[in-house]
Amino acid sequence: MNVIRPAVHPVEAPPVVDAANDAMPRGRMKDIQGMPGTPGGLALRFSQFAFALLALCVMATTSDFPSVTAFWFYGILCASYLVAAVSLQSLWSLTLAILDVYAILVKRRFRNPRVVSLFAIGDGITSTLTFAAACASAGITVLIGNDLNDCAQNHCTRFETATAMAFMSWFAVSPSFILNFWTLASK
Amino acid sequence: MNVIRPAVHPVEAPPVVDAANDAMPRGRMKDIQGMPGTPGGLALRFSQFAFALLALCVMATTSDFPSVTAFWFYGILCASYLVAAVSLQSLWSLTLAILDVYAILVKRRFRNPRVVSLFAIGDGITSTLTFAAACASAGITVLIGNDLNDCAQNHCTRFETATAMAFMSWFAVSPSFILNFWTLASK
Repeated sequence: MNVIRPAVHPVEAPPVVDAANDAMPRGRMKDIQGMPGTPGGLALRFSQFAFALLALCVMATTSDFPSVTAFWFYGILCASYLVAAVSLQSLWSLTLAILDVYAILVKRRFRNPRVVSLFAIGDGITSTLTFAAACASAGITVLIGNDLNDCAQNHCTRFETATAMAFMSWFAVSPSFILNFWTLASK
Repeated sequence: MNVIRPAVHPVEAPPVVDAANDAMPRGRMKDIQGMPGTPGGLALRFSQFAFALLALCVMATTSDFPSVTAFWFYGILCASYLVAAVSLQSLWSLTLAILDVYAILVKRRFRNPRVVSLFAIGDGITSTLTFAAACASAGITVLIGNDLNDCAQNHCTRFETATAMAFMSWFAVSPSFILNFWTLASK
């Protein structure tokens, strides 16, 4: 009797990748600190939230900002834009910080591409808005302070502080955005 | 005689992934127009270069910009920063447009992760610089035009045109950056 001996290498069956069910990752890459659902990611979210909230508080305590005389229209416009961008940033970061805390507590990672793409898009939008507001504010503050010498009337220090906080918040959002995008693309 | 019949599923052996040789892509994803080495990518590069060059020309023809009286220090500073950012952007985009033309001519794609990561980092840096310059310029131009009503003296229209061109250039860089980063991460 001629027994056929199949030359079978002991390969493991690859995990079944269902093209329709793309929630299943092809290769589970190792977790980099800073990705959503890791303690590093939570620290990033918390620092984004803290800096954005600081900027918001500094702007909010400048109660008479709209009453500046020389730059009333654009002063209000720019301050409003900075406040709006920083509010959006703090709300977004707070939401994701809560989600991160939940993920750490249940010891899961966000792996669903839809969720991660939502995170990446939100991070991209909020970071762009915050960065634009910070840059415009920085330009205006330096113009008022250096060339117009009108700082005493226009709360330059407060405005500069809020601008610096907005920049710090942007610095904290950028790694989150990049790591979210990386997680999304490497699936 | 008891013939053992191994229950072997006809699985294909998975492709050997050499961890050291990461130049070999794991799964060759389909080319999306806009990636480096595609005609779409070349079009993006060309539009980046064209808009940045336009902004540079508009700024360069404003020969008496530094002679503005009221905003001399910051006027020079901001104009210089815009010119520097836009120059860097145009040089970078021109270089990558030439590389894209070469890649299209030899019918190759940039797949080396080092090259693609260099592209992604360069795109990220130049787009951030261009966007920051455009935002700061926009803030200052609107402040000068709306609140100080000093446009006649300060070449607002030219400055606004250059700012708009810088924004357009940034809009063209963003997809390049995102697609480069995607290419890099999806390897």
